[in-house]
Amino acid sequence: MTFATRLNQAIARTGSVTCVGLDPRQASLPAPIRDAVSSNHPEAWAAAYTQFCCEIIDVVRDLVPCVKPQAAFFEQLGPAGMVSLGQVIAHAAESGLIVVTDGKRNDIGTTATAYADAYLGSPEHPSPWRSDSLTVSPYLGRDSIEPFVDACDERGGGIFVLVKTSNPGGGFLQDLEANEKTIYGHVADLITQLNATRLDGDGYGPIGAVVGATYPEQLAELRAAMPHSILLVPGFGAQGGTAEDVKAAMDSQGRGAIVNSSRGIIFAHARPDLAQKYGDAKWHDAVRAATIEMNEQLKFVG
Amino acid sequence: MTFATRLNQAIARTGSVTCVGLDPRQASLPAPIRDAVSSNHPEAWAAAYTQFCCEIIDVVRDLVPCVKPQAAFFEQLGPAGMVSLGQVIAHAAESGLIVVTDGKRNDIGTTATAYADAYLGSPEHPSPWRSDSLTVSPYLGRDSIEPFVDACDERGGGIFVLVKTSNPGGGFLQDLEANEKTIYGHVADLITQLNATRLDGDGYGPIGAVVGATYPEQLAELRAAMPHSILLVPGFGAQGGTAEDVKAAMDSQGRGAIVNSSRGIIFAHARPDLAQKYGDAKWHDAVRAATIEMNEQLKFVG
Repeated sequence: MTFATRLNQAIARTGSVTCVGLDPRQASLPAPIRDAVSSNHPEAWAAAYTQFCCEIIDVVRDLVPCVKPQAAFFEQLGPAGMVSLGQVIAHAAESGLIVVTDGKRNDIGTTATAYADAYLGSPEHPSPWRSDSLTVSPYLGRDSIEPFVDACDERGGGIFVLVKTSNPGGGFLQDLEANEKTIYGHVADLITQLNATRLDGDGYGPIGAVVGATYPEQLAELRAAMPHSILLVPGFGAQGGTAEDVKAAMDSQGRGAIVNSSRGIIFAHARPDLAQKYGDAKWHDAVRAATIEMNEQLKFVG
Repeated sequence: MTFATRLNQAIARTGSVTCVGLDPRQASLPAPIRDAVSSNHPEAWAAAYTQFCCEIIDVVRDLVPCVKPQAAFFEQLGPAGMVSLGQVIAHAAESGLIVVTDGKRNDIGTTATAYADAYLGSPEHPSPWRSDSLTVSPYLGRDSIEPFVDACDERGGGIFVLVKTSNPGGGFLQDLEANEKTIYGHVADLITQLNATRLDGDGYGPIGAVVGATYPEQLAELRAAMPHSILLVPGFGAQGGTAEDVKAAMDSQGRGAIVNSSRGIIFAHARPDLAQKYGDAKWHDAVRAATIEMNEQLKFVG
């Protein structure tokens, strides 16, 4: 089964397009986790990250199709953090969740193949990290994307190529126009070309795209330009994107996109609207409530 | 002391602009290392990568200013590979070499800060990985570069932003023209702006640039467009760039750039011109000979 089919089936099974972003940060951990960290050594924090993320996975595994660990926060701890990342991904995979590793990796030629080997896989052909898919940067060009596509063909797994990112300054290169097309439009065209010969029964290919919720007009434009791509939509919630904004990302059956929320779910215990009811002590309940709330907000698309 | 000053001083001290790329690959390891791998477990290969790269560091430490471990090949092994990467970087730092971690990382806002925390440092403010600098992708825009610049200001350390890469298809986005300037030109302008207020006594700032040796005309153009950037020049040797090609990257004192060679040095035992003299058994001698040869090829710039 291809990555796109697996992901769309997981969306249908859970009735959810929510992707829970696993972005652990020392200062934001709920008190029961943070206070149990016995020293300031990276190993101690890494153990806390593993516990925190694995417990989140246990809370949300029946509610959502996928999780997206953010590699940067694990790398911030040094090698110990990457051991934690491996434990978190493995636990998510064993919990039946699809894993999108957010690494925004890329390189040229056989080096890109090394990243693809690392993070692209499927239940039949698991990758060393047990990850299913990876976010990929397009700056290095078509021949830097193709090794990932080859890995999608060979082992299942998928990629999400950065097209239009959610940050305020993302337009610096992405919005420039060359040959009467934006740079993000050039990337979208490449993705559509590469998917065209790789479609599953629902018309989706393995090459997804990152398109931010914070630019709703471009989201609609890019949904049309990339009809075969599953969209990974960051920027919902804490970054300002609304349910109405992300509606344009879905196909008519409410699939074809996953919407990420990180802080709004994993640090729900500290959200002004939830802190009083839950707080640090009931942080698991806050995570579950925030996930159910997001699923309901995005239900109209299903 | 700033990153640029440290790197230029290391170039002057060694009389070398050679950067040894540490790109371990299972199939290419010299037989004495490969044959000692006792199982196909990632841990066994990771131990071989650590041994191989640390022994290379011991061979070249008096000959070159810096090494560039390629994160992808370590990540390919899963978490065990990242433990190896940490050991290799630590050994390089303890050997007095400047470490350029080649990760081509980036993300938005505080996530970019996490990558900067991970990999940017100096002897006074070592990073968790003990790395001095990191290669960074510009696709996410100016506000994704600025967190790295802040880290350069705070802790020393540097970055090398991808501008014009050495691969055949690198021009897909990089060579497009928008507002009468190439995309790589827009990136170069941003780098020059950011460096302008951060110059050391020699006129160099902490924000370097990756410019491939395989496009000599653009290398000369970009040297002029980024007078304050140390250039990291890949593509020499195995990828086709010649000593004459990279000459344009240097300033009048033969500094201001480092030229990377990976396969040509670390797998020198298998090079057609060196295999007979050295071969697998004398692979250390082959690495040393190839490094000295490259230093001599680039001597005219000193």
